[in-house]
Amino acid sequence: MSVLSKIDRANALVVGASQGIGLGFVKQLLANQAMAKIFATYRHPESAAELLTLAHQHSERLQCFAVDITEESQIAESVNKISTEVKQLHFVINCVGILHEGELQPEKSLRQIEPDRLIRYFQVNSIGGVLLAKHLMPLFRHQDPSIFASISAKIGSIGDNRLGGWYGYRASKAALNMFMRTTAIEYSRRCPKTIVVTLHPGTTDTNLSQPFQKNVPPKKLFSVEKTVNQLLAVIDDLKIEDSGNFFSWDGSRLPW
Amino acid sequence: MSVLSKIDRANALVVGASQGIGLGFVKQLLANQAMAKIFATYRHPESAAELLTLAHQHSERLQCFAVDITEESQIAESVNKISTEVKQLHFVINCVGILHEGELQPEKSLRQIEPDRLIRYFQVNSIGGVLLAKHLMPLFRHQDPSIFASISAKIGSIGDNRLGGWYGYRASKAALNMFMRTTAIEYSRRCPKTIVVTLHPGTTDTNLSQPFQKNVPPKKLFSVEKTVNQLLAVIDDLKIEDSGNFFSWDGSRLPW
Repeated sequence: MSVLSKIDRANALVVGASQGIGLGFVKQLLANQAMAKIFATYRHPESAAELLTLAHQHSERLQCFAVDITEESQIAESVNKISTEVKQLHFVINCVGILHEGELQPEKSLRQIEPDRLIRYFQVNSIGGVLLAKHLMPLFRHQDPSIFASISAKIGSIGDNRLGGWYGYRASKAALNMFMRTTAIEYSRRCPKTIVVTLHPGTTDTNLSQPFQKNVPPKKLFSVEKTVNQLLAVIDDLKIEDSGNFFSWDGSRLPW
Repeated sequence: MSVLSKIDRANALVVGASQGIGLGFVKQLLANQAMAKIFATYRHPESAAELLTLAHQHSERLQCFAVDITEESQIAESVNKISTEVKQLHFVINCVGILHEGELQPEKSLRQIEPDRLIRYFQVNSIGGVLLAKHLMPLFRHQDPSIFASISAKIGSIGDNRLGGWYGYRASKAALNMFMRTTAIEYSRRCPKTIVVTLHPGTTDTNLSQPFQKNVPPKKLFSVEKTVNQLLAVIDDLKIEDSGNFFSWDGSRLPW
């Protein structure tokens, strides 16, 4: 990573690292010797076995915290713990997101809209991200280049929406995009070396996409490793003037 | 209104009509003799005195209901009542929106972000609108041209955001824009004569903008009457291919 490789000993945080893309980022960051400390969060230990094993194997470099992103106190507490270990973060990626979760399923039509489920989408997919932005700011107040990226989704592009459906997921990702663009503006004043972006990973073979993979052509269904490498290449190319924008896995700018 | 004037006896619904732009729409619709029945909702009778007086004076044409847009059951109940009076709606405008409300104030910075307040913005400004879309669909299933418009705000344009701040209001309007674009796609299949749009009214002299008017040049602060006339002119020009888009008071398309 050009931004990160300029720094001798960079510190990273992966939020939502128990599985899928988040876990993939942890593995890649562990393989990168420029990374000094890697912090990672998970919601439930029972679904974070692989991450916790990695933390055990790499106890000097990888440290994990249980964080439910819908509980601000848990975010604040984990940031406090990170602050006792390091004074600066150089790379943060928020990989938390829900599309389906038990009764919560993407709505095929307006008939399936339920307010409590919409609120759940906003809490996890949108509000969690801006709470991270709020609490992480002190760790970005330094003079090294740094990146705060969030996994969004092209399906959260309003302008690109031609198929309809998936009301809650779409609106929560559009809200995340707005929160992160607004964060980019505030960060540009308070921690001007931090690049804030949202990223579309493409359809990736994870639990999130699993029920919806059957219509995805095999070439368009990426392995986690491929997605993480592609996103790292995009991140690698980011310049400060890219802050506040929304990028696809191939590096192209997406419409809002 | 070209769409509406084609219909002999059109029926309209103004949601959030107790004050401001909503009340202005009720007055203009009452003055339009092509309008047969006008339905209007308000949240609290104590802040809807003028609307309730109008309903008393025009009891044959104007009927009001108390509806808290965050309570789906109240939306469903009011739509049921409307359905006993008319079989079709031709013009619906959702004017419900909050920017400030007691403790709830637009956030100047990330430090002021509070999850419960963000949820309140989403409940009122975003989820209410898509619940209306869900419950009103049966009343749009007819062969006359019709319009379902929602008051959004240019400050909810992600692409246009250059100043930052106002996180919750911005994100909730972006989410509304996504909900309404997604609604437009579903309506195009189920009630294909209905044009679904979001509208930016410009800064209007209402309770909503009142604390923030001091930096608005006088020429850019519209009276309610002027705003309503301008929006009616935009609505007047809408064509079916405009459905799913976001328009400013001057008729220009806004970026998402």
